[in-house]
Amino acid sequence: MGAITFSIEKRLKGALGRAGILTTPHGVVRTPAFVPVGTLATVKSITPEEVKALGAQIVLANTYHLYLQPGEAIMAKAGGVGKFMHYSGPTMTDSGGFQVFSLGFARGHGITKVLKEEKAHVQRDEAASEHSKLVRVDEDGVTFLSHIDGSTHRFTPERSIEMQENIGADIIFAFDECTSPLLSREKMEASLARTHRWAQRSFDAHTRKDQALFGIVQGGRYPDLRKQSAEYIASIDFDGFGIGGSFDKEDMTTIVGLVNKILPEEKPRHMLGIGEIEDLFEGVEQGIDLFDCAHPTRIARNGTILTAHGKRDILKAEHREKFEPIEEGCGCYTCTNYTKAYLHHLFKAKELLGYRLATIHNLYFIVHLVDAMRAAIIDDSFFDFKKEFLAIYQAG
Amino acid sequence: MGAITFSIEKRLKGALGRAGILTTPHGVVRTPAFVPVGTLATVKSITPEEVKALGAQIVLANTYHLYLQPGEAIMAKAGGVGKFMHYSGPTMTDSGGFQVFSLGFARGHGITKVLKEEKAHVQRDEAASEHSKLVRVDEDGVTFLSHIDGSTHRFTPERSIEMQENIGADIIFAFDECTSPLLSREKMEASLARTHRWAQRSFDAHTRKDQALFGIVQGGRYPDLRKQSAEYIASIDFDGFGIGGSFDKEDMTTIVGLVNKILPEEKPRHMLGIGEIEDLFEGVEQGIDLFDCAHPTRIARNGTILTAHGKRDILKAEHREKFEPIEEGCGCYTCTNYTKAYLHHLFKAKELLGYRLATIHNLYFIVHLVDAMRAAIIDDSFFDFKKEFLAIYQAG
Repeated sequence: MGAITFSIEKRLKGALGRAGILTTPHGVVRTPAFVPVGTLATVKSITPEEVKALGAQIVLANTYHLYLQPGEAIMAKAGGVGKFMHYSGPTMTDSGGFQVFSLGFARGHGITKVLKEEKAHVQRDEAASEHSKLVRVDEDGVTFLSHIDGSTHRFTPERSIEMQENIGADIIFAFDECTSPLLSREKMEASLARTHRWAQRSFDAHTRKDQALFGIVQGGRYPDLRKQSAEYIASIDFDGFGIGGSFDKEDMTTIVGLVNKILPEEKPRHMLGIGEIEDLFEGVEQGIDLFDCAHPTRIARNGTILTAHGKRDILKAEHREKFEPIEEGCGCYTCTNYTKAYLHHLFKAKELLGYRLATIHNLYFIVHLVDAMRAAIIDDSFFDFKKEFLAIYQAG
Repeated sequence: MGAITFSIEKRLKGALGRAGILTTPHGVVRTPAFVPVGTLATVKSITPEEVKALGAQIVLANTYHLYLQPGEAIMAKAGGVGKFMHYSGPTMTDSGGFQVFSLGFARGHGITKVLKEEKAHVQRDEAASEHSKLVRVDEDGVTFLSHIDGSTHRFTPERSIEMQENIGADIIFAFDECTSPLLSREKMEASLARTHRWAQRSFDAHTRKDQALFGIVQGGRYPDLRKQSAEYIASIDFDGFGIGGSFDKEDMTTIVGLVNKILPEEKPRHMLGIGEIEDLFEGVEQGIDLFDCAHPTRIARNGTILTAHGKRDILKAEHREKFEPIEEGCGCYTCTNYTKAYLHHLFKAKELLGYRLATIHNLYFIVHLVDAMRAAIIDDSFFDFKKEFLAIYQAG
């Protein structure tokens, strides 16, 4: 008996989707579910009580960031990341792989997703342009520079697992190499083979019985490599799986479906770093159980509000005298209590409360949207729901 | 019958202090009380629910700032500043006078209090150094430049009252000239005479029966001018009084006592912009009922934490592994749920939640301290409480 259990409550007819129940040492997660990102042991601007009140069931923190600041030892001494941040619910950490590579190697290849991710770092990092030369992969691990102070660090699969055991989340991930999809076939094959060796080493290094370990499927945009990766990773007795790497929109459906047909049905699947509305529908349809993404909270802090009719820029002058919620009928704390005019004012004045109210709304929106997909699987209305929702959302 | 009522529950034996009950259209304020500052219709980083939960009874917003951004008309259309910001409790606004002068005239005279106040503006205002030349007072009013975009604006007593009626707080203030205490006697006399004419004009301009209007006593560091001002302002049928201007620590006790001996005992008295612990004790002892100050919240956002043993810098390395509340025994949300180590981490990482948790603690601390002074007046232990508290606080 592992640290988690997963059961399927209902299957989506005609596709791979399913509604499931994931039980962790810190509580239950009804899947599919959206996982808010709390990079530095805080979902930026909001409290754990607010995280729960907006409907989130589980939070993901970033090992790379916590290792650099404040250091994993602090988390271990605090009794784990949950206790450290005063969050009693389920938690997960990524392996640090994505951040290590997104701050270095991938930079030179113009991958949009990675570049977007980097922007936040670049603001804090005058030396960022140096990084592309300064991430070095070898068979044993990766040497890289801190985005905070440029100091040299090294991650290996064993070190990543050790850090994640210290951080102490309920679900942790194997350490993988995150490649650019523009990588040559030859290099991709070599990288994938190494990621598979690292998966086994991560599995072997893992000692904590109260933590679940997920393996990560890579393989870029090559269906045969994805298939090979899914088969290999599925052959190791992981508690669940992550699907990593950057996708084109077109690839996503086919690649995710292909992978999930191979992965054992009875274990949970996490799609790493995906949070666009269309992608969430596709992912759920293709059998993804968990999604994490910093996008909804990042755009919130720039004043971009998610609504059923598309994204809205709260800074636009049209909101200045609108004394109505940012989304009619929305049950979030922000929409229940504040107007567009007030949020517009807060953002114009760069008031801290604005970032917070927008974050609460965007997370509520996306968490409840994935919850609604789950409900639609259960009552056999998923495809109608998807069609109707996206028609309105994309009409704007 | 005016917009407010004020009754004295208990008098401090041997001094001018009193415990009172102030009733406003939006609720009761037990005095003496500390009033958090919500400059731009938000107590920076926290919600109105949090303002109430930390024990605050009333909030003060700044007319100058709200006039510039988002404009008083928005407040009027929203149904007043309380509704605009989703705060159902009592509110007050200042007249805008202090900000107009602190962004201009007072600058050249090296007044610490004013300069501190200005720092926040300077960060947003590249043109700040121009302002000292660009605030022009005449008999009718003041012409000044916006600290946001340098545009020209004009306030008069009538305009200040009109703005404050639009903003719609429960308690508003007469428009005064805020002078430097280093002003020559001759110029101070001229300024004071004008402030008195402006007080009468403010009184005459005020039309809203659901708002209380407080007159402001000025007179700088000259006891005879303070006396003259208190007598003149007391002769107008204001609902209460503000005491304005910059004081030296030594002057504060004598000047405030002198003024409050003259002001009618049955009306509430507000000390403008004072929030240092020692000054709060002095003010309460000398008969002040209300204090507002942005200082506790401003230092919170810099990581300075108020405790019974003095101020603490949460950024210091000594807090890095302290898994205990920032103040043992404190009942605030922050101390109940988070550790020094976590706050230290949030501040090091410049995480938004840190500003918020520190703000909650500092306001809780100062609101409860003034509440404790009130309780000490009621149970005849004020002087013992003051002595004991300050001995520990000043020992650090």
